[in-house]
Amino acid sequence: MIETDALVIGAGPVGLFAVFELGLQGVAAQVVDVLEEAGGQCIALYPDKPIYDIPGVPVCTGRELTHKLLQQIAPFKPGMHLGQQVNALERQPDGRWLVSTTRFQQPAQQFLTHTVIIAAGVGAFVPKELRVDGFGEFLGQQAFYRFAPPAACAGKHVVIVGGEDEAVANALTLATTGPNQAKSVTLLHRRDVLQASSDQLTKLAALREAGRINFVAGQITTVHTTDGVLSSVAVTTPDDQTLYLPMDTLLICLGISPKLGPVAQWGLEMERKQLCVSVDTFATSAPGIFAVGDVITYPGKKKLIVSGFHEATLAAFAAAALIHPEASTVLQYTTSSALLQQRLGVKPMGNA
Amino acid sequence: MIETDALVIGAGPVGLFAVFELGLQGVAAQVVDVLEEAGGQCIALYPDKPIYDIPGVPVCTGRELTHKLLQQIAPFKPGMHLGQQVNALERQPDGRWLVSTTRFQQPAQQFLTHTVIIAAGVGAFVPKELRVDGFGEFLGQQAFYRFAPPAACAGKHVVIVGGEDEAVANALTLATTGPNQAKSVTLLHRRDVLQASSDQLTKLAALREAGRINFVAGQITTVHTTDGVLSSVAVTTPDDQTLYLPMDTLLICLGISPKLGPVAQWGLEMERKQLCVSVDTFATSAPGIFAVGDVITYPGKKKLIVSGFHEATLAAFAAAALIHPEASTVLQYTTSSALLQQRLGVKPMGNA
Repeated sequence: MIETDALVIGAGPVGLFAVFELGLQGVAAQVVDVLEEAGGQCIALYPDKPIYDIPGVPVCTGRELTHKLLQQIAPFKPGMHLGQQVNALERQPDGRWLVSTTRFQQPAQQFLTHTVIIAAGVGAFVPKELRVDGFGEFLGQQAFYRFAPPAACAGKHVVIVGGEDEAVANALTLATTGPNQAKSVTLLHRRDVLQASSDQLTKLAALREAGRINFVAGQITTVHTTDGVLSSVAVTTPDDQTLYLPMDTLLICLGISPKLGPVAQWGLEMERKQLCVSVDTFATSAPGIFAVGDVITYPGKKKLIVSGFHEATLAAFAAAALIHPEASTVLQYTTSSALLQQRLGVKPMGNA
Repeated sequence: MIETDALVIGAGPVGLFAVFELGLQGVAAQVVDVLEEAGGQCIALYPDKPIYDIPGVPVCTGRELTHKLLQQIAPFKPGMHLGQQVNALERQPDGRWLVSTTRFQQPAQQFLTHTVIIAAGVGAFVPKELRVDGFGEFLGQQAFYRFAPPAACAGKHVVIVGGEDEAVANALTLATTGPNQAKSVTLLHRRDVLQASSDQLTKLAALREAGRINFVAGQITTVHTTDGVLSSVAVTTPDDQTLYLPMDTLLICLGISPKLGPVAQWGLEMERKQLCVSVDTFATSAPGIFAVGDVITYPGKKKLIVSGFHEATLAAFAAAALIHPEASTVLQYTTSSALLQQRLGVKPMGNA
């Protein structure tokens, strides 16, 4: 259990900037994101595409913006908890919030926090699901979405489901000679067309040629168990044949898509799947819980990063005022305030 | 008279970003600022000091932020009208606004515009006034604040009032051999201590030594006229002597300070010297007039550049909707929209 003053849900640009503004207010934050790296949509959807409308940044990619923001929040040393999803948010008798996260469908982490800033964007980027009966109970044991622990693959018969970059990359990794090499690797995709870089496809072709990766076109229809463990999957091929693939581990890489997910179950006031907030503080209907960015709605709201930065700023001020009600409310500027510069760990360049 | 769809009052960072967001919406803008260069407070107050809280820009000076924003708006080729102050704003029978500016207290420019975005910050940075009776009627003829036309100085006896960089720089320029050289240059400051760079002070000392700049410590008490023209000023020295300095031209360089100025006379709803706005559109109480940045107030308002960027964005959307009511209101993104990329004059870097 981690005790904290502020928990930020979502490590996209708006969540990261909330950490920055909290830090300027002297509030240390913990950050949770379901993705394995910070950046949110900027990393998940357009890491290498140009963004032109960040004020003062004529052009940058999603990845560059993320890196700049990580650099900007570095002085405040936030606790980063990636690859886990916030599941439950329960108010405690003392007014604080108990926040629980899960990773690979297992309990991961608990936080006890004074305030929460939800910057969940269009929702948690969760793996697209494999819709086959009966394998759900093996998740985290023999079946995994996107990432599997090395012990579940090394020396095992692994079936990878998917036809894009991530599936191909996993197949290449697991077929590579080394301590984590799988005993056999089968790449299973519904049709014989893969979407990956030409470099990846060249490597894949070589490993198929060498018999180290087996490619099967088809879709899993059923899973079979032997003595309570997954032992094989039945696959229907495009020409309606049925194959049985023996296996120890199933790695499902069907891509990711955003899901609002648990946010909708926390009892917060919502309107058309978005959180309602007060525009002077970005407070939700629950005390101590703020929300900013694409997850919120208010009159005039535009889903733009520039607006999220403003929302994160006002939410951070309001959260800080809850945490430190005794603090001065006089607005200070990073250009001139010795206190803010001390928190940033910088010495001014000018002769201030 | 310039006809335009949008006029932005104030070329500080928030006004410049309003130009950008208007441009993305397909609206060309004209910009007016009282300062001789763009940048507002960033240029007038802290051009070389670091700013740490621009999202995605871990550190930049006021000048660097201004340059980045000018680069960002360059594709939209706004009309820049610097060194002039918006004086009057009158609604026309057709609903448009007639905006008049002044320069050196003289009429400068008129605009007929559909919409106005006021981004006037803490007010117009206007010259600090010389408080001496009787010279006001000579402003623009023989007396000037900060800048004088070459014809008013070349071959003339010039008295420069002031003791900081700008006064010293003007003295050095007017004493320099060339077609615009003054016949004589007197630098007049209330005491014998000047605030300027060591480089400037070294040059000044050399020119004083050479008899090309005359320095006088003292304050003007009265001005004298001969046949209706200014002919000399009476100066009281620190030891209570009175000197008479014959002169043709008076150049007053006492620095600048912000004044809300004419904005307060336009009949717009205000609260404690700030404009009241609706936070969904940043519309003022007058149709077609929006206001953003430090000049406005609303519940929760923080006078931060990051908030001004958001306000400028929503104001630009609302102004564009007034100008092009038929346009689609579907939000487009610079990362993915061919239309926005066309307006920006860019080709995407990715394979969009």
